[in-house]
Amino acid sequence: MNSLYILKIGGKILDDKAKLKAALSDFAKIKMPKILVHGGGKRANEICPKLGIEPKMIDGRRITDAATLEVVTMVYAGLLNKTVVSELQVLSCNALGLSGADGNVIQAVKRPVKAIDYGFAGDIVSVNTDVLKVLLQQSITPVFCSITHDKQGQLLNTNADTIATSLATALTEEYAVQLQFHFEKKGVLMNPEDEDSFLQKLTHSDYEALKASGVISAGMIPKLDNSFAAKAAGVASVKIAQTEIL
Amino acid sequence: MNSLYILKIGGKILDDKAKLKAALSDFAKIKMPKILVHGGGKRANEICPKLGIEPKMIDGRRITDAATLEVVTMVYAGLLNKTVVSELQVLSCNALGLSGADGNVIQAVKRPVKAIDYGFAGDIVSVNTDVLKVLLQQSITPVFCSITHDKQGQLLNTNADTIATSLATALTEEYAVQLQFHFEKKGVLMNPEDEDSFLQKLTHSDYEALKASGVISAGMIPKLDNSFAAKAAGVASVKIAQTEIL
Repeated sequence: MNSLYILKIGGKILDDKAKLKAALSDFAKIKMPKILVHGGGKRANEICPKLGIEPKMIDGRRITDAATLEVVTMVYAGLLNKTVVSELQVLSCNALGLSGADGNVIQAVKRPVKAIDYGFAGDIVSVNTDVLKVLLQQSITPVFCSITHDKQGQLLNTNADTIATSLATALTEEYAVQLQFHFEKKGVLMNPEDEDSFLQKLTHSDYEALKASGVISAGMIPKLDNSFAAKAAGVASVKIAQTEIL
Repeated sequence: MNSLYILKIGGKILDDKAKLKAALSDFAKIKMPKILVHGGGKRANEICPKLGIEPKMIDGRRITDAATLEVVTMVYAGLLNKTVVSELQVLSCNALGLSGADGNVIQAVKRPVKAIDYGFAGDIVSVNTDVLKVLLQQSITPVFCSITHDKQGQLLNTNADTIATSLATALTEEYAVQLQFHFEKKGVLMNPEDEDSFLQKLTHSDYEALKASGVISAGMIPKLDNSFAAKAAGVASVKIAQTEIL
């Protein structure tokens, strides 16, 4: 089975030109077939107020009303995606930018309203790997922004970690997938004040214990839940920076 | 030789939701392999002043400074491209949005500064059809926005008519290309006041005569020059609305 490398980079790296260049340079050097998934960054938040839109966040998650959806579509699928693609092209990595609407690769539904109405936030329902396999066979590197659609004409703002794990999971039938989350720390930290307290490995039972004792911060839980779910679904390797998820 | 249909739609149709829907619905019904190329529309001009950028036009052409380039990349490659793609997906047309940077399909150079400095405007130097052929073979419909790159990391704002004719010309080796320009009039008009004065056909010698006598308006000249160049380069059929270019 061929290997496939999937790298997810977050907003913080997109906001730092030097760090982004370094990460893309490392990524371009990877010889196996590969996919990049990128998040958002602060740019959308900077643009919203200038267009008269107040960014709304609840528990660190964006509430995407119709006007905000337009801005994130512009920034994520337009500015950031094409900037990343053109930078990878310089590095002779034949990148091709995609949203989930393109080639109908990622179909989602608008998140059902429960305690919180997240607006036009997408929960992924299916990944169509046909187009991806064709692109990868042509040595093309898909670059995903965090926008999907519902195939009813509605674009949806979608968590980039979830896109990365959904792609990894869907592609395990064809590839031994190595899923790597780029992260501003060296890994999952035992002590948030100490960079060197990162774990080399993390098992699911240890994760549950660390979560119960409050060592794992709330902000890390969705990423770790995603990671363990991917691992359980057959993704060959999952790493958050240097921490291997077992 | 297989046929390929290339439709270019302009800004005016992108600004009118009902007209856009009708045009996309007609386009989706076309059974042969097809490509859509879309221009810009007024949205970028509306957003620029809100972000403190004054839109600059000379002779109807946009002067693209660095800040304007960011806005047109957001609007053309992000908002408009993904809106068109998701609308086509509703119509069961498996659309996939591209800029010229994606898959390195269209390489351009920054327009040399002569009498006017157009800023980050791109003049196309090459079209790489490999990716397009693979996508078309998979019944995928490429949807191009009017952004290209120079493969040195610079995105470039590029005339959508020129993108359409460059794609048509590059693909004539593989396909009998039918290039259609969507147009707000019924065709090339003999009298701009009379919709029904459109020409059924226009030969190059008649065009030269009409241009010399001032019947053809200045704004139509780049589109017509592009059209005759495509025809001369072997594009099977070129039409501006109902006017066939011979």
